[in-house]
Amino acid sequence: MENFTFYSPTKFVFGKGVENDAGSLVKSFGGTKVLLHYGGGSVIRSGLLGRVKDSLVASGISYIELGGVKPNPRSGLVYEGIELCRSNGVDFVLAVGGGSVIDSSKAIAAGTLYDGDFWDFYCGRPIERALPVGTVLTIAAAGSEGSGDSVITKEEGMFKRGTGSEAIRPRFSILNPELTTTLPPYQTACGITDIMAHLYERYLTNSVDVEVTDRLIEALLITMKNMAPRVIADPCDYEARANIMWAGTMAHTNACGVGRSQDWNSHNIEHELSALYDCAHGAGLAVTMPAVFRYVVEHDVNRFAKAAVRVWGCEYCSEDPLSTALEGIEAFRSFLKSIGMPGNFAELGAREEDIPVLVKNLCYGDGRDGTISGFVTLNEEDCTKIYKMMV
Amino acid sequence: MENFTFYSPTKFVFGKGVENDAGSLVKSFGGTKVLLHYGGGSVIRSGLLGRVKDSLVASGISYIELGGVKPNPRSGLVYEGIELCRSNGVDFVLAVGGGSVIDSSKAIAAGTLYDGDFWDFYCGRPIERALPVGTVLTIAAAGSEGSGDSVITKEEGMFKRGTGSEAIRPRFSILNPELTTTLPPYQTACGITDIMAHLYERYLTNSVDVEVTDRLIEALLITMKNMAPRVIADPCDYEARANIMWAGTMAHTNACGVGRSQDWNSHNIEHELSALYDCAHGAGLAVTMPAVFRYVVEHDVNRFAKAAVRVWGCEYCSEDPLSTALEGIEAFRSFLKSIGMPGNFAELGAREEDIPVLVKNLCYGDGRDGTISGFVTLNEEDCTKIYKMMV
Repeated sequence: MENFTFYSPTKFVFGKGVENDAGSLVKSFGGTKVLLHYGGGSVIRSGLLGRVKDSLVASGISYIELGGVKPNPRSGLVYEGIELCRSNGVDFVLAVGGGSVIDSSKAIAAGTLYDGDFWDFYCGRPIERALPVGTVLTIAAAGSEGSGDSVITKEEGMFKRGTGSEAIRPRFSILNPELTTTLPPYQTACGITDIMAHLYERYLTNSVDVEVTDRLIEALLITMKNMAPRVIADPCDYEARANIMWAGTMAHTNACGVGRSQDWNSHNIEHELSALYDCAHGAGLAVTMPAVFRYVVEHDVNRFAKAAVRVWGCEYCSEDPLSTALEGIEAFRSFLKSIGMPGNFAELGAREEDIPVLVKNLCYGDGRDGTISGFVTLNEEDCTKIYKMMV
Repeated sequence: MENFTFYSPTKFVFGKGVENDAGSLVKSFGGTKVLLHYGGGSVIRSGLLGRVKDSLVASGISYIELGGVKPNPRSGLVYEGIELCRSNGVDFVLAVGGGSVIDSSKAIAAGTLYDGDFWDFYCGRPIERALPVGTVLTIAAAGSEGSGDSVITKEEGMFKRGTGSEAIRPRFSILNPELTTTLPPYQTACGITDIMAHLYERYLTNSVDVEVTDRLIEALLITMKNMAPRVIADPCDYEARANIMWAGTMAHTNACGVGRSQDWNSHNIEHELSALYDCAHGAGLAVTMPAVFRYVVEHDVNRFAKAAVRVWGCEYCSEDPLSTALEGIEAFRSFLKSIGMPGNFAELGAREEDIPVLVKNLCYGDGRDGTISGFVTLNEEDCTKIYKMMV
């Protein structure tokens, strides 16, 4: 096991009705004037935003609003949010939504206290301070409610880039599984896929003797495998929603990923798809992961075979462990299909003729030298082949 | 799943050599004058205390020392520590040791800022403030490095009682598995048993539909089952020590126990043993748990059968699930024996004739009404039968 630091000082308040604690939580973390940041109209129509506002008012906290966050959140709204925070003396940013809203909130929180262009943070400059951020989560997916990470797309050039800092880690996150019961099945499935990707990206490691984190990741993958069909069959299954929501948070606080190298190639390969086609991140991952896994399986057949046996219930074939490994990848692919995820470029709305552009952005964007690194280092030729497997 | 709050703001710094970060960590959490609290001579002989002191000095932090903490830590030394902290203007308590040292440090930290008798906190008074506490852990066992709990034994009457508060949760914990490689096998096994008890106490729940936490607990139990024989065979197996250490911390931050009722009857039944005989807590648990589990197995046969199959590799017998459940309990008992733990009263140094006293202290101590509550509510007769099963 490798040396590590694990620090997850977010207060998670979980269960039915807990959005009504928003005001007291903001107050307990020192907030007095809040930017209430959200996406489309669903949080208004559902009454959630109203309940959060009531809770703020009841705790004597004033607020201003900025809605309109889109999936794959854009830099334009971040600039607008920073301006609003500065001109209104905002001292706390409260995200009401999913990963996109939370990531946008983190960018606004950091940008407000920075003299330069907030995009600098997404080009390698460390975030040293930020307004405190809290979240009211409406979809189990990105894990941004328990991480210091944020991904934003710059509109000029559609570059999708990430940053990470303790300063933007949420002070609290309100997790009410009831809020996720109104999600359309497709979005639910995208969230499930994203959570499982966060687990697989940690599972694919070159570190040895990491039993404790291997077992924790497998535990969360099995939970997702068992709970996903329940919420697809019955979106109002509170218990299944609750299990998925906590698994999603645990998948990304990194408690199950410490002390080991991680992959993240699937995320990087997918990011080019959602940047170019504006597809849902989870949908892109559903198409990407099985292709990546098949491409790299021989790098560590035993690891894929282990997942096949322990997570997907395959029988281990000692004469041909590769067949077990491939069977596990196929089981995952079938599972993703069964919950309604796309399986190829066409179903995703991607085009084969764009592959050269995707590969160029992937391998040379973000200051890269022609390769991406993770479980396996992949060059332009590898990435081209992987994208072609997805056609 | 039940509503819950999960808040674990301890910074865990894990790996080889990380005790040398003690000074910078104390400084980062605002400490300037430290009480260095520890147990016997082993931390001196091993050079650990010297390295921690060097690290403090290098960060410009002064310190005073108080050694002498014994297993099942006593109130007398706590009073001494409180006096020392007050008279020397101490602003940070650094525990160098295991659960006993950490629990004693927490009591001193709370008592220093309280005008009354610190024992009030162990009789139900909430701890509202305390000096900040940090830890350098030397045994994977109690989980106190990641919890707000503390257990102290009052010398007058040998009452062993606990308290819990966010105020005494460690600000940071330094976890170097190397420091545990010099532990004698018996202490190592006691620590392993304690960790597994923390997992079983959470596993035995009356909450339904708690797949995510069930799976996480099973993952950690399997890790312990697989790693324990390695450290018993080779105490210097760093990787096995590392897996056990992180499992021990994860077992007790409660990340795997949220949203579900928990048991803790085995801990309560054991506490009377270590209070009366001053035996090691883990050794007491090794004798207690199999008896308790056999006594309550019919309360939820399926749950015990599930652990038998998933953790202990038993085959599920659908005609007679109770036999599977009992097979799992027996597998656990054999496992405990295989790592050198005692299996009955005699091996523990306990006496059958003391059972009436044990039961009286258990069922009427700590303000109880003649019963203890958990997975199953147990009365005097139940507890008498359980202690007799342990003879």
